[in-house]
Amino acid sequence: MGLTSPEADFESARFVVLPVPYDGTTTFRAGTREGPRAILHASRELESYDEETGEEPHRRGIATLDELAITVASPKEMVDRVRDAGRILFEAGKLPVMLGGEHLLSLGMIEAAAAFHPRLTVLQLDAHADFKDHYQESPYSNACVMRRVWERVPVVQAGIRSLTREEHHFLIENRVPSYFARDLHEVPERLDEVPEDLGPEVYVTIDLDVFDPSVMPSVGTPEPGGLTWYQVLRLLRRVTETRRVVGFDVMELLPQPHLAAPDFLAARLVHKMLAYISLDISRRPC
Amino acid sequence: MGLTSPEADFESARFVVLPVPYDGTTTFRAGTREGPRAILHASRELESYDEETGEEPHRRGIATLDELAITVASPKEMVDRVRDAGRILFEAGKLPVMLGGEHLLSLGMIEAAAAFHPRLTVLQLDAHADFKDHYQESPYSNACVMRRVWERVPVVQAGIRSLTREEHHFLIENRVPSYFARDLHEVPERLDEVPEDLGPEVYVTIDLDVFDPSVMPSVGTPEPGGLTWYQVLRLLRRVTETRRVVGFDVMELLPQPHLAAPDFLAARLVHKMLAYISLDISRRPC
Amino acid sequence: MGLTSPEADFESARFVVLPVPYDGTTTFRAGTREGPRAILHASRELESYDEETGEEPHRRGIATLDELAITVASPKEMVDRVRDAGRILFEAGKLPVMLGGEHLLSLGMIEAAAAFHPRLTVLQLDAHADFKDHYQESPYSNACVMRRVWERVPVVQAGIRSLTREEHHFLIENRVPSYFARDLHEVPERLDEVPEDLGPEVYVTIDLDVFDPSVMPSVGTPEPGGLTWYQVLRLLRRVTETRRVVGFDVMELLPQPHLAAPDFLAARLVHKMLAYISLDISRRPC
Amino acid sequence: MGLTSPEADFESARFVVLPVPYDGTTTFRAGTREGPRAILHASRELESYDEETGEEPHRRGIATLDELAITVASPKEMVDRVRDAGRILFEAGKLPVMLGGEHLLSLGMIEAAAAFHPRLTVLQLDAHADFKDHYQESPYSNACVMRRVWERVPVVQAGIRSLTREEHHFLIENRVPSYFARDLHEVPERLDEVPEDLGPEVYVTIDLDVFDPSVMPSVGTPEPGGLTWYQVLRLLRRVTETRRVVGFDVMELLPQPHLAAPDFLAARLVHKMLAYISLDISRRPC
Amino acid sequence: MGLTSPEADFESARFVVLPVPYDGTTTFRAGTREGPRAILHASRELESYDEETGEEPHRRGIATLDELAITVASPKEMVDRVRDAGRILFEAGKLPVMLGGEHLLSLGMIEAAAAFHPRLTVLQLDAHADFKDHYQESPYSNACVMRRVWERVPVVQAGIRSLTREEHHFLIENRVPSYFARDLHEVPERLDEVPEDLGPEVYVTIDLDVFDPSVMPSVGTPEPGGLTWYQVLRLLRRVTETRRVVGFDVMELLPQPHLAAPDFLAARLVHKMLAYISLDISRRPC
Amino acid sequence: MGLTSPEADFESARFVVLPVPYDGTTTFRAGTREGPRAILHASRELESYDEETGEEPHRRGIATLDELAITVASPKEMVDRVRDAGRILFEAGKLPVMLGGEHLLSLGMIEAAAAFHPRLTVLQLDAHADFKDHYQESPYSNACVMRRVWERVPVVQAGIRSLTREEHHFLIENRVPSYFARDLHEVPERLDEVPEDLGPEVYVTIDLDVFDPSVMPSVGTPEPGGLTWYQVLRLLRRVTETRRVVGFDVMELLPQPHLAAPDFLAARLVHKMLAYISLDISRRPC
Repeated sequence: MGLTSPEADFESARFVVLPVPYDGTTTFRAGTREGPRAILHASRELESYDEETGEEPHRRGIATLDELAITVASPKEMVDRVRDAGRILFEAGKLPVMLGGEHLLSLGMIEAAAAFHPRLTVLQLDAHADFKDHYQESPYSNACVMRRVWERVPVVQAGIRSLTREEHHFLIENRVPSYFARDLHEVPERLDEVPEDLGPEVYVTIDLDVFDPSVMPSVGTPEPGGLTWYQVLRLLRRVTETRRVVGFDVMELLPQPHLAAPDFLAARLVHKMLAYISLDISRRPC
Repeated sequence: MGLTSPEADFESARFVVLPVPYDGTTTFRAGTREGPRAILHASRELESYDEETGEEPHRRGIATLDELAITVASPKEMVDRVRDAGRILFEAGKLPVMLGGEHLLSLGMIEAAAAFHPRLTVLQLDAHADFKDHYQESPYSNACVMRRVWERVPVVQAGIRSLTREEHHFLIENRVPSYFARDLHEVPERLDEVPEDLGPEVYVTIDLDVFDPSVMPSVGTPEPGGLTWYQVLRLLRRVTETRRVVGFDVMELLPQPHLAAPDFLAARLVHKMLAYISLDISRRPC
Repeated sequence: MGLTSPEADFESARFVVLPVPYDGTTTFRAGTREGPRAILHASRELESYDEETGEEPHRRGIATLDELAITVASPKEMVDRVRDAGRILFEAGKLPVMLGGEHLLSLGMIEAAAAFHPRLTVLQLDAHADFKDHYQESPYSNACVMRRVWERVPVVQAGIRSLTREEHHFLIENRVPSYFARDLHEVPERLDEVPEDLGPEVYVTIDLDVFDPSVMPSVGTPEPGGLTWYQVLRLLRRVTETRRVVGFDVMELLPQPHLAAPDFLAARLVHKMLAYISLDISRRPC
Repeated sequence: MGLTSPEADFESARFVVLPVPYDGTTTFRAGTREGPRAILHASRELESYDEETGEEPHRRGIATLDELAITVASPKEMVDRVRDAGRILFEAGKLPVMLGGEHLLSLGMIEAAAAFHPRLTVLQLDAHADFKDHYQESPYSNACVMRRVWERVPVVQAGIRSLTREEHHFLIENRVPSYFARDLHEVPERLDEVPEDLGPEVYVTIDLDVFDPSVMPSVGTPEPGGLTWYQVLRLLRRVTETRRVVGFDVMELLPQPHLAAPDFLAARLVHKMLAYISLDISRRPC
Repeated sequence: MGLTSPEADFESARFVVLPVPYDGTTTFRAGTREGPRAILHASRELESYDEETGEEPHRRGIATLDELAITVASPKEMVDRVRDAGRILFEAGKLPVMLGGEHLLSLGMIEAAAAFHPRLTVLQLDAHADFKDHYQESPYSNACVMRRVWERVPVVQAGIRSLTREEHHFLIENRVPSYFARDLHEVPERLDEVPEDLGPEVYVTIDLDVFDPSVMPSVGTPEPGGLTWYQVLRLLRRVTETRRVVGFDVMELLPQPHLAAPDFLAARLVHKMLAYISLDISRRPC
Repeated sequence: MGLTSPEADFESARFVVLPVPYDGTTTFRAGTREGPRAILHASRELESYDEETGEEPHRRGIATLDELAITVASPKEMVDRVRDAGRILFEAGKLPVMLGGEHLLSLGMIEAAAAFHPRLTVLQLDAHADFKDHYQESPYSNACVMRRVWERVPVVQAGIRSLTREEHHFLIENRVPSYFARDLHEVPERLDEVPEDLGPEVYVTIDLDVFDPSVMPSVGTPEPGGLTWYQVLRLLRRVTETRRVVGFDVMELLPQPHLAAPDFLAARLVHKMLAYISLDISRRPC
């Protein structure tokens, strides 16, 4: 993260940013491979101070790795590569911040997180349930990623507004806590219930299409009726205050050349998460 | 409508989509002729399931016609061509779904609807009153279309935020129910009053600029302060629950190459209407 | 301002629009030099009638000057040139409406205003505090402009959501009333307190990034979480009803070729201010 | 024409520029209505001196009229409006320079020219023959315009590379001199034969797609294999040196927001024609 | 191919167009998956008559298949899928016309062609040699495709202007006829030597970056100094006149939203090839 | 320069690339500040091997400096900053390669070069003479830069096709060798005369608008009729073969988001110059 502040070296950094420019299973519009670069580019224009918390996250050390080398051999192989990279970060005691790239990649990072945090639960912010069993003859794709994750660790969803009848039934039958965007708009207080479904250790995976397209049009399949900036912040702050976040990712930015605002939002979102977690760290023994 | 579901053949379809790529009287930025194609293109990425209602509208049959051939002879002639096409659809017992194209075209479809539904009333969602008597020496243009409609059937407007002093006085003098966007924002409950001004049979004509430009920038003359996604849905659902919708149109999409979100919104809006009407059908004898 | 109404000549005009196509100290993305032209272009599509107030501001006379000739000699010299132009307008009894161009230019116009209105206070709508002492070795830049203004006249800020720790402390120590966007969202009523910090004569300077990027993406450094259209109008109307506005500016539009909506918003914002001020004029002896 | 030189008043001007922002019969991509404005905008950045001829055409007086008001009533009516405007210019002894807008408009101006110059011949630079008898049930469209012209005055074509078998046969049977782009590339000297088919008084109508798309991509239906900049200049200079050009037009610019070069080429082309004609005037008694 | 002419059914068609929207191994800018659709879209605006040959290729029957379903499992699997599709076409006695999509796909079609035509040689028009042995740990990628082809059938290259030292040496050592763009520009007659290196049966694979970026900017890695439109036509016509072309492909179009000309060129190129082959067919017993 | 090859460290590098992202005096379209980044970005996709010369310039060492910090204080001050940076490079025995940024910056680098090379002459490739004495009340602007240079060292121009009558006379009176684009097209051999007007030590300054807009549309004021890729290469190779090039710059790239080809051309041009100079070095004692 550029920010207007110095980068930390890997050793001293608390947060380690991992850009993964991969969009191999995207079937509609390609281009989320450009996402990590756009977020980092925008981040250089941000003030490093967060006026809400009074935090300057770079004081805890932020190191940004080179982009992870991609392989076109197969999606599964790419997921494994992310998992291996994640493992190194967790072993080194870092808090990984992955920038995507397509959502399938989150599977690898969550596998790495789960190996270190046996009681891990996952908070998924997303417009789509992503709970299909297979898609285009493959179990490894964006449309299936959270089903694969759920087979490993418990998942809580928020912001959902697009899914199939089959997915809907599956979520109900398996009691996956799924907070629909429509309900969160009609009963704003329900946002505060989301953290209650989470365990003490949480990995947060954010598909940027969870936001309303008015503030986040730069995604592959925008769906109207998404969450607002302040709704997402309220939820994330609540989670960081009551749970321990061990890692997070911001995925699916499909940058558009004449739309800088979504890139800035994604960069600011990362910064906000870092500020919230910094605030949390300052209150608890690490 | 592509959706992720099969098209119906004309015979068995309940809903018939008619794309009309015409923007002949547009005086500012041209391009709504590309609107129908953009909506249909986006619709192919939508799930066919509506989680709010539990409906899958394609189960009632959706057939999509070829684009209506246009004529450049004169705007009046083009309106007549739409009216003739509409007549065939109503005669065949279909519920027409017109995709525009410029708003003037709605006049033709409403003429066809009125011929079959003598008690028809029209609900107009729009940023502009469109109640000028003449514009650029012609009575047939986007700026006059609802005046022409009103001369035939009663009109109720919602979302208005741009008009002339003359139009404002005309609406008041003639007691045209006109719900201004400002008022709907200040007193949200007023939305629920709108259907009360409608008769039992309703044609809904939607100029997409009724939406706030934050979610619908892809229109010719965007006006700030428009309705939100959930406001429009709330109104449409209320109408479909209490009135019989005999046809509707979604007009004035001016697609922009790097902005997919508005095209998706328009496609989802059509899908929502189909779901609401399907729900209504399932409750009443058709 | 084109509007759909005739321009006034300078003599009879109450409002005088001054376009200043300068962006010399912009360090990130250039292009606000195109802002004035884009606002004027969009304004030609607006109705001249304001349905909220019933006003037609052009009835009080609006004259639009040629673009101010720019100098590349130095930013300070450009500020002086604006000040000199402003002085002529105030001397002629006009209400200046500056269209930018970069925010630094406001300093010149406010200097001119302060010379004629000794009790002047300034209302700044902005995402950024702009209270740095120096930036890139210069005291004259966008990042410092309101610090320079504050050294001359009292400043009240609203909409702020990006600043450094140093700026934050400076604002607190010097008791500069600064209404953060976050607070205005959480406690909407706080908007109505803003005017109370202003003196009887007010110059309003609007950096368009005060708006949320969903409605105003066309700025250089968009920050999520900004004010809505209706929030800004509510504030501006309250100010014009209770204070005397002697001039205003709308700055930092960075027009994007495929995004007309932000240009329309900026044009409509100018029109709204003119309508509010017209309403105020009709109630008080000028 | 802006150029870096003063505009003349109508009385003293030798050349009168008439912008006609109309694209009503365009069936593929709309937008040539923006052409005249783009040419005039680019022309402001051009030097007024032509280094090839040593001419400064503005010394003979160039006046630029307001855009011709358009009518959407019917294409035929729009052609008549152009003819009436042209008649006034010819009566006033001016040399008209029309900027389009779609090619159909040339018919109107040529009708006006023919009324004053009984021996008129027309030189058409174009990628398409435009010699269809009817198109989309109408005799008045871009695809038929030169057939309509040919029914009134002799036509010579150059640059053609797209036509139907029927058009090809018609041209041969009626001995319309038609110089194909392919032949002009293979035997460059054939360019110099073109003027020999023209009479002493010539109107030049330029559809910008005569140029190769590498230098002129901003047209509706670009065809590879067009003429180069220097080929067109060579032909135009030869014509102005040996014939009397009584008027000309530059049509079909469809400006693209991120491609300034084609707009500059169109502006420079107008300037070149003015320089060549100026040179010719200085050699002959007017 | 749309053209302005009717599609043939598969049975009666001589030419069968196969669109393959795949760009899985593209490592720089994605988007050639949009290529086939863009070519087909542009082809609808083309006249079906070729004035150079007098041919109307659709008279021999052109059928356009649905887009080949893609698999993201692995690039090798995708190549196999193309090969299987090609086999069906060759077995049915069709002349396949593949529209890409990335260049790797040509391997599959050439494998199918070689199975039916044992003496097959391949003519490759390309800016890049594509003769790397491996790239990014994989033998199946755009950078290696012609090496893989060459391992199966003889290859002749033309238009090359980018390669590594290793590739250069490999080509020389293995006596692969490789005509560099620079040489073809300096000694235009060398173009006519190219066919002499080919056997009697030829598959032509065209990477569109063989063209100069002035006429074909819509490719992933444009290289200056490419071939002109007429150079490529001259070569292709010479080949079709002296050899039997059994199939061809047009690959690597990466369409840009505001650049229609390259899409038109690609469509016209396909049409030209069909016309040349039609001319050839009419002269020989098929 | 990225290339597909390792960067050298400063010590061992023969060539040092200095990116200067400044466009402060640009009066029309801003954005050449983005030029250096675009060139470096494109350079990463180029092969490091030059097939024409057999050279791999990175073998002599290429180091790329960070972007030069800009000052907005005044254009003169920015020129001085470039001069100071250049001085350090010449003192260290490097061959500077400046990437712009606006053309005015060349003045600073040439001043530094002239201080070390008393017999220096300058070769200017440009569409515009840039020989105005003053422009917009300032002697330091793009329009005057070569006049300022000429006051210090002899200048030879090539590619010119836009200038004022005054500049034309000045060039003639002062016998500045100026090769017009028109003449170079008509008599190609004249290109080879250009080096003869140069002294033994040469600094080459390339304003990218010297190229024809077909291959280089990404400049501020494109002029039709420019030089082709092979014309420029022929001239540059001739110069490097017969003169000693002590430094060069590539200026005025105004990158457009959807046009990658011009960025690639600029990157390849730098690479070609490095290859030509490398070839020259290998033949002479350094």
